[in-house]
Amino acid sequence: MFELGVVYRNIKRADRKAADALAQYGSATVHEAMGRVGLMKTYMRPIYAGAQVSGTAVTVLLQPGDNWMMHVAAEQIQPGDIVVAACTTDNTDGFFGDLLASSFMARGARGLVIDGGCRDVKTLTEMGFPVWSRAISSKGTVKATLGSVNIPVVCAGMSVQPGDVIVADDDGVVVVPAAMAKKVLDTAQAREANEGEKRAKLASGVLGLDMYSMRDPLAKLGLKYID
Amino acid sequence: MFELGVVYRNIKRADRKAADALAQYGSATVHEAMGRVGLMKTYMRPIYAGAQVSGTAVTVLLQPGDNWMMHVAAEQIQPGDIVVAACTTDNTDGFFGDLLASSFMARGARGLVIDGGCRDVKTLTEMGFPVWSRAISSKGTVKATLGSVNIPVVCAGMSVQPGDVIVADDDGVVVVPAAMAKKVLDTAQAREANEGEKRAKLASGVLGLDMYSMRDPLAKLGLKYID
Amino acid sequence: MFELGVVYRNIKRADRKAADALAQYGSATVHEAMGRVGLMKTYMRPIYAGAQVSGTAVTVLLQPGDNWMMHVAAEQIQPGDIVVAACTTDNTDGFFGDLLASSFMARGARGLVIDGGCRDVKTLTEMGFPVWSRAISSKGTVKATLGSVNIPVVCAGMSVQPGDVIVADDDGVVVVPAAMAKKVLDTAQAREANEGEKRAKLASGVLGLDMYSMRDPLAKLGLKYID
Amino acid sequence: MFELGVVYRNIKRADRKAADALAQYGSATVHEAMGRVGLMKTYMRPIYAGAQVSGTAVTVLLQPGDNWMMHVAAEQIQPGDIVVAACTTDNTDGFFGDLLASSFMARGARGLVIDGGCRDVKTLTEMGFPVWSRAISSKGTVKATLGSVNIPVVCAGMSVQPGDVIVADDDGVVVVPAAMAKKVLDTAQAREANEGEKRAKLASGVLGLDMYSMRDPLAKLGLKYID
Amino acid sequence: MFELGVVYRNIKRADRKAADALAQYGSATVHEAMGRVGLMKTYMRPIYAGAQVSGTAVTVLLQPGDNWMMHVAAEQIQPGDIVVAACTTDNTDGFFGDLLASSFMARGARGLVIDGGCRDVKTLTEMGFPVWSRAISSKGTVKATLGSVNIPVVCAGMSVQPGDVIVADDDGVVVVPAAMAKKVLDTAQAREANEGEKRAKLASGVLGLDMYSMRDPLAKLGLKYID
Amino acid sequence: MFELGVVYRNIKRADRKAADALAQYGSATVHEAMGRVGLMKTYMRPIYAGAQVSGTAVTVLLQPGDNWMMHVAAEQIQPGDIVVAACTTDNTDGFFGDLLASSFMARGARGLVIDGGCRDVKTLTEMGFPVWSRAISSKGTVKATLGSVNIPVVCAGMSVQPGDVIVADDDGVVVVPAAMAKKVLDTAQAREANEGEKRAKLASGVLGLDMYSMRDPLAKLGLKYID
Repeated sequence: MFELGVVYRNIKRADRKAADALAQYGSATVHEAMGRVGLMKTYMRPIYAGAQVSGTAVTVLLQPGDNWMMHVAAEQIQPGDIVVAACTTDNTDGFFGDLLASSFMARGARGLVIDGGCRDVKTLTEMGFPVWSRAISSKGTVKATLGSVNIPVVCAGMSVQPGDVIVADDDGVVVVPAAMAKKVLDTAQAREANEGEKRAKLASGVLGLDMYSMRDPLAKLGLKYID
Repeated sequence: MFELGVVYRNIKRADRKAADALAQYGSATVHEAMGRVGLMKTYMRPIYAGAQVSGTAVTVLLQPGDNWMMHVAAEQIQPGDIVVAACTTDNTDGFFGDLLASSFMARGARGLVIDGGCRDVKTLTEMGFPVWSRAISSKGTVKATLGSVNIPVVCAGMSVQPGDVIVADDDGVVVVPAAMAKKVLDTAQAREANEGEKRAKLASGVLGLDMYSMRDPLAKLGLKYID
Repeated sequence: MFELGVVYRNIKRADRKAADALAQYGSATVHEAMGRVGLMKTYMRPIYAGAQVSGTAVTVLLQPGDNWMMHVAAEQIQPGDIVVAACTTDNTDGFFGDLLASSFMARGARGLVIDGGCRDVKTLTEMGFPVWSRAISSKGTVKATLGSVNIPVVCAGMSVQPGDVIVADDDGVVVVPAAMAKKVLDTAQAREANEGEKRAKLASGVLGLDMYSMRDPLAKLGLKYID
Repeated sequence: MFELGVVYRNIKRADRKAADALAQYGSATVHEAMGRVGLMKTYMRPIYAGAQVSGTAVTVLLQPGDNWMMHVAAEQIQPGDIVVAACTTDNTDGFFGDLLASSFMARGARGLVIDGGCRDVKTLTEMGFPVWSRAISSKGTVKATLGSVNIPVVCAGMSVQPGDVIVADDDGVVVVPAAMAKKVLDTAQAREANEGEKRAKLASGVLGLDMYSMRDPLAKLGLKYID
Repeated sequence: MFELGVVYRNIKRADRKAADALAQYGSATVHEAMGRVGLMKTYMRPIYAGAQVSGTAVTVLLQPGDNWMMHVAAEQIQPGDIVVAACTTDNTDGFFGDLLASSFMARGARGLVIDGGCRDVKTLTEMGFPVWSRAISSKGTVKATLGSVNIPVVCAGMSVQPGDVIVADDDGVVVVPAAMAKKVLDTAQAREANEGEKRAKLASGVLGLDMYSMRDPLAKLGLKYID
Repeated sequence: MFELGVVYRNIKRADRKAADALAQYGSATVHEAMGRVGLMKTYMRPIYAGAQVSGTAVTVLLQPGDNWMMHVAAEQIQPGDIVVAACTTDNTDGFFGDLLASSFMARGARGLVIDGGCRDVKTLTEMGFPVWSRAISSKGTVKATLGSVNIPVVCAGMSVQPGDVIVADDDGVVVVPAAMAKKVLDTAQAREANEGEKRAKLASGVLGLDMYSMRDPLAKLGLKYID
């Protein structure tokens, strides 16, 4: 459960190589490699198209309308991290803007995933700092109430432990538990290996029905063709 | 009502010329030409801006979290078709990605309209295969349960018969019944004919109040001007 | 409360210089300068990215599915105005398209903020006429029922008086009461003055914790660091 | 597609006995008997708990904020009908209240299913006239624009033909095509026949795992039990 | 616009007799008497069925997750008031429970209308203190940030001035500007006067088509009857 | 992260006495006793009013449209448990009805919390088996895909470990980690101890402003009273 008013300084980050290598496979392939679990809710959208990153999670638990813990989190960022911010209640306020982004980038963060609002999106786009958020909002926040940093959080419906791997792109945000990072990477690589071949076949007109030998199982389930 | 486990192979497509020609008028003009009916719900959004297509509908009824019927549908696609996928319950899973798009394109499909999720949107954008969907989602799907192909479906609040014309662009997705395609085309052409003239007048400062002779009917209804 | 069937011709617009100058600060800074109030709900989104405008409000109260009052409003537009359209009930129909935009531009409008739908978004983007709306929809509207022009309205959760200043950009839409425009401009300017310096410090690695002297108040509230 | 401005006076209603008999099975059983299709979206809720009805559909297509067609529909009601009202766009206005209910009841209607708003719910509850709606709203409507009566409509995501059977209760609203009414009734009866026995077994502590012989198929799919 | 950190002690309440008398007509009739304006959004629902009240508004502007101003508001309540609470951002936290209700009742409040969450609904129901809210939520709130009392607010999409009349029942919440209270009461009384007669006629089988003489205007607009 | 296809048979349930005793305090008090964390999202609503339960969690992870794991979970239920069902994607299908309820009751379950749909609500109400769900839906489900039982899940935005205490009533659903159950019980008891006294004071007209000594801190923050 959520513990308030604490900052864990020493978190166990996932294997760095795996955390870095997952980005190239993207969220859809990694999600498949996980066994089709780990995806945050689809209301999480990138503030600009085209970013594709992976990194280790520094987690933040925010209070509604209060971004104080984002500053506390900044100090805990190490190069290769992605900040994952949850909130104790649904809230779309603009917890994050260009000043915090300057700070996060200086610390080596690769992006932010926030179950809340984001502002200064034009400047963030120019800076090339990717954010996945539930809303875009000019609304500023106060600094009055304690949350926590680097505790387990639930962000957009998905449980995130500090140090887990985050993979985010235009298709969404996937969470890979730190302990599974290497194995998921292997599976993702294997999946990708024959994707090119499959794509070529399909592009040449071969049907998935034949390529995947689906006709028999479909017939067994009773699919009827009517002329 | 929905029939499960059937594939209709011979559907009556709308007149090809009308189906092709409607694209140029776009969804807003076609919607007007229909008498202001036929528009899918506005949560259906293109995965990238600028695509404007029309074509004949191949329909698919999916089960939640299951995209098996998309492969069955691929075989029924003919050049000039647009696939219209509905689901038996609200579901945002990523039923469609770049592999299926390769297959659909090879069959001659012009796009996909899906009341569900879509993934690989970056690749689909590069491929130039337009999709209108209710969500973008990395979540993959299983192949376990039968739906149907080319039965009447309800997609995003609109009834679609196989063979109907679909017109889709940045403003939304409109359904034109096959039997009305030619007539709607004529009406759309007539509407467009004097649009340029109207636009020029308005751009020169003439008010709609005068151009459309609205002052009298407004006064009759009692509109009061107060200085 | 809402008065139906009236058009106020003489509204008191906010100070022109202040109304014009606020655009450069953007909605987030202006919102802060207002004391963190005045922001419309975050479902109001621009139809294209990058526009940043300010201007004086001409208000419209629409009936659902009826855009007649938009034509009445056009006549009341003066150069430097932004039209703010509310509706008597939640409605996403496409009340506004390229023809009305031609008319609004000819009158000197800088944009439209509408708690309803907008269509012809591709053409509007080409024309460079920015619209903030709750939806994009091909659905056309009738001209049958009276609303009002230049009465106080509630648009996307925010009260707007005719003549108030509207500041809109990618982050959202903020309303500045006419009487506060100059003061808000001064505050916004003061806020911006040292933003560059702050950004530079943060970009160099100084933490907000130190720059804003947050460590003490956090400690007083009981924030615990755990190794 | 939707035809506006027409009233079909002679519709073919489903077999009366089947239409009447389906009520007792309720929407969940009828939905199963249909092969798990035909259910309207779950936002359709009864205005009071406990009503359980079935009847033949008289359909209405409304314009947003306009309930004129409800009066036109009243004349087409025959004893045993249920009125099904759709709208050309999403709208929650209060299209229906106690006066119309008095009229509908006088004509023999058993209830109303409306993809819009309903008002006077306290009085309707006292009158015992059940309504399933997407919203409750005091907002009255105008009488200005034509819709249609007894054309095919899409109501809450489900296609309804005039004369289809509607089954509605606390669990939702199901549509049974007129031609399938008898067959669905037979299937529903068969399903119910051994429900009591099943319930008794389960209540005595027999597990569904055993009663339905699920252990083997689960094991075959690889379900692992861990102590 | 919203002013933060102020409490207006002397507000001009609407005429007491009118404010008290409007309750009996209910929100739907009052909404009609207003000319079909003044209704809050339909997501505002009573925590229990059957309450029907009217009274003068004491307004509160809350910060998200913070109910401090509710205590400040309590002191401003006079017998016959209804508290109307808005929030600077969308928030569903439980700002109000049985303790505050005890306090409000002691001051003579007739109910609460809150664009936020409410808790202790079972106890509130037993106490007979009606609340209209956007959510029910156990989530408690802090007391850390200033809002305001008795400033103009926007609650659930409707502008409310302190002293306005609030009419709330199972159909929703309507706001009557203080200056219009008497006139609206007169109109509501006139509307109700012949409602009974109309209801009797309709219940006897007379159609609205005839009672309201709708057949001619419908025919003029082109309504076609098809046998 | 989520592991699919596993059933953990031996879970460590929270202290039985604490798990049982928490019910009487209700979700709002327990949520406060937790430090204002642990509440599921407010879209989780009881299918009937008045139930107030607590118990130990047996967790289920469902696939969309598939309730097979509910039968697997039934076997793992012990007296005093509450079943908590999550789904791998947002889904409102009716995963649970009166047959499963008979089975769950026979095993000693006190209720169900499901981030999905529920059906047969009239019968469940008569049986007195309480369910908190995100939707009510007649839609039946298949038995085709594996999920898991007694793994950690995220249900309605809250992380739940098997064996945690669930407290649910009309105000919502709160999760108490097993290890904290006794401490939270103590805190809840202490909170309740002087609630009666507070309520009596407030009911007698004492203001919260005075009872909680709020006037000074409000003044220090700058609250202004204006006559």
